[in-house]
Amino acid sequence: MAVIGTGITKFGELWDKSFREIGLEAGVKAIGDAGISGSDVEALYVGNMSSGQFIQQEHIAALVADNSGMAAQHIPATRVEGACASGAMALRAAAMAVASGHHDIVVVGGAEKMTDVDDDEANAILTMGCDQEWEAFFGATYNSIFAMMARRHMHEHGTTREQLACVAVKNHRHGALNPMAQFRSEITLETVMGAEMVADPLGTFDCSPVSDGAAAVVLAPLDIAHKAGGEVVELVTSCQASDSLSLANRRDICTMDATVHASRRAYSQSGITPGDVDVAEVHDCFTISEIMAVEDLGFVPKGQGGMAAESGMTALGGKIPVNTSGGLKARGNPIGATGIAQAVEIVAQLRGKADKRQVAGAEVGISHNVGGTGATAVVSVFRRAR
Amino acid sequence: MAVIGTGITKFGELWDKSFREIGLEAGVKAIGDAGISGSDVEALYVGNMSSGQFIQQEHIAALVADNSGMAAQHIPATRVEGACASGAMALRAAAMAVASGHHDIVVVGGAEKMTDVDDDEANAILTMGCDQEWEAFFGATYNSIFAMMARRHMHEHGTTREQLACVAVKNHRHGALNPMAQFRSEITLETVMGAEMVADPLGTFDCSPVSDGAAAVVLAPLDIAHKAGGEVVELVTSCQASDSLSLANRRDICTMDATVHASRRAYSQSGITPGDVDVAEVHDCFTISEIMAVEDLGFVPKGQGGMAAESGMTALGGKIPVNTSGGLKARGNPIGATGIAQAVEIVAQLRGKADKRQVAGAEVGISHNVGGTGATAVVSVFRRAR
Repeated sequence: MAVIGTGITKFGELWDKSFREIGLEAGVKAIGDAGISGSDVEALYVGNMSSGQFIQQEHIAALVADNSGMAAQHIPATRVEGACASGAMALRAAAMAVASGHHDIVVVGGAEKMTDVDDDEANAILTMGCDQEWEAFFGATYNSIFAMMARRHMHEHGTTREQLACVAVKNHRHGALNPMAQFRSEITLETVMGAEMVADPLGTFDCSPVSDGAAAVVLAPLDIAHKAGGEVVELVTSCQASDSLSLANRRDICTMDATVHASRRAYSQSGITPGDVDVAEVHDCFTISEIMAVEDLGFVPKGQGGMAAESGMTALGGKIPVNTSGGLKARGNPIGATGIAQAVEIVAQLRGKADKRQVAGAEVGISHNVGGTGATAVVSVFRRAR
Repeated sequence: MAVIGTGITKFGELWDKSFREIGLEAGVKAIGDAGISGSDVEALYVGNMSSGQFIQQEHIAALVADNSGMAAQHIPATRVEGACASGAMALRAAAMAVASGHHDIVVVGGAEKMTDVDDDEANAILTMGCDQEWEAFFGATYNSIFAMMARRHMHEHGTTREQLACVAVKNHRHGALNPMAQFRSEITLETVMGAEMVADPLGTFDCSPVSDGAAAVVLAPLDIAHKAGGEVVELVTSCQASDSLSLANRRDICTMDATVHASRRAYSQSGITPGDVDVAEVHDCFTISEIMAVEDLGFVPKGQGGMAAESGMTALGGKIPVNTSGGLKARGNPIGATGIAQAVEIVAQLRGKADKRQVAGAEVGISHNVGGTGATAVVSVFRRAR
């Protein structure tokens, strides 16, 4: 099937906008971009982690359908949740709705309004994507668990503090080129290294921010997309895998097996290898996450993810540009929106519409979205249709 | 496709059991009933409304996959949420996964652990399935909104207080025959009429209880089901519709248009009429809800739902037995589990295994699951395969 439209709001601390407003804005943009009308939409999917706790509203897909006027057409509206992977999981569910023949034109939105609670509460909510009973209860947080992975990665693979920082510097550089990014200022290695410590070895600039934002895409069968004309971007496959919720039960805390399994299935189903990927959006909730992701996705052997960031291999102009949008780090990480925002960026790249961030001649792109500390991963393959 | 296995826990105030335990129990029963092994399962879907608030755990499908050992196989595990319709929405998402060819054998579980918070908090959480901004913020609750529907139904259609009570009496009578039901005691009309008022005209016995519980079913393509032998129950279709989140924007607060649209699509897709339905599980979160459901599903004309309960038409032995399990009212309503528990009951009926609750010769059954005050409805049609 194809992605026939995309829409995204500015990401950031959007104190003057409600969940309803940002959800509507992204959806209207995507529908407009697809050149369809709201009445063409047959189903709605929404990726969202925790609207119940952030804005005291569950049943959020019905709210989006209502607020966008689509509930008047009584279309099915479904929320999918898997912590920070909620967006890509919603995309995958929507893709199944099209593939199963249930629906033709489907809108998938992702949205999160995180800044209506204070930072401590936001962190407590994020930690609910980890294992409450075996991790959070004992004081572990989302941040400290990733710090453990980072420290172990440094021990096992010789990854350096500077290499972690290189990920942040690169993604801020990319984000500075993205008008929708939360942070649009370049930063230096010294800024990252000298920042306040969050959880050793991760400092402020190693962490993705708390963000508000929404993104949406429109899916349709390939024949409908070709009939509409223009550059067609195919969603070739979207694969999802699980792993233990707590870090303690993982085979290796420097590897996300969910990413390994999801990507291997995705490569196999789409007939590509990691070497065929021209551009990738990966889940850099922390700098260490991007380092692990480029390894687990097979772009470099295990242990060389730090080097990939340091050498410029994953920067714009490098062998495989990663997170041209700025990633979670600089574009921002409104949890439910993140997986969809990744798809929006990849589609822009494959359409050749990524402006100053454009990867020349990009034909194959992937998005990689992780839930919690790696208990869920979704890898989607996109291709410019010939 | 077919439902090849079902499992359910006892519903009730399960203070000695955790979410993990009840989820595992239902899943293991369903897998055992299907005669398969855990390693045959290709994907997991979980319906759950608000684990983040009830047990401080989001990312709940990953938890279930982990706790059941299935995360070791790295299968995709996906949570679907739509307030009280979460269970049936998860069933529908799983059905699409099978229909799209992505997976063959899929487990769908529904679970909610509600009694770890106090009743006031539980009610506040349930009200988050309504419109926070236009209803809850102004003091409306889940209970009071349904009371408004009831009062209006009495005014418009002459429905009586006694007719509301008849629904509770009937469903408690059915529940007394169901070993898994939360309430297994028959009650009299006088008990219902004389009970403490919750929201006029609804008293304690007009409301479904706060419950813990889990249920699961296993889906597979029809050919696999037939190969396994035994009575095969087909899931013919599962249709979902939306409506405005708040009551204020509805065409008629005595009609749930989401139910009307979902059921008309389901009848059309499965080639049946309401008259073909032998047994139905409908969403009786309040007594008024069942009255509206039997009307909106087309079993009786609008306004005659109260009469249907009073006349015995919807009781075991009547023309169309409704909620033979005891319904939400007596079997219990652990939110995310409810839609799956309805499927478990319908499958038992169509297999001829409903014991003292058996509807003789039942061939076609439907389940009807509502989210919030009717912003989502899912109607599924099941049929004994010939």
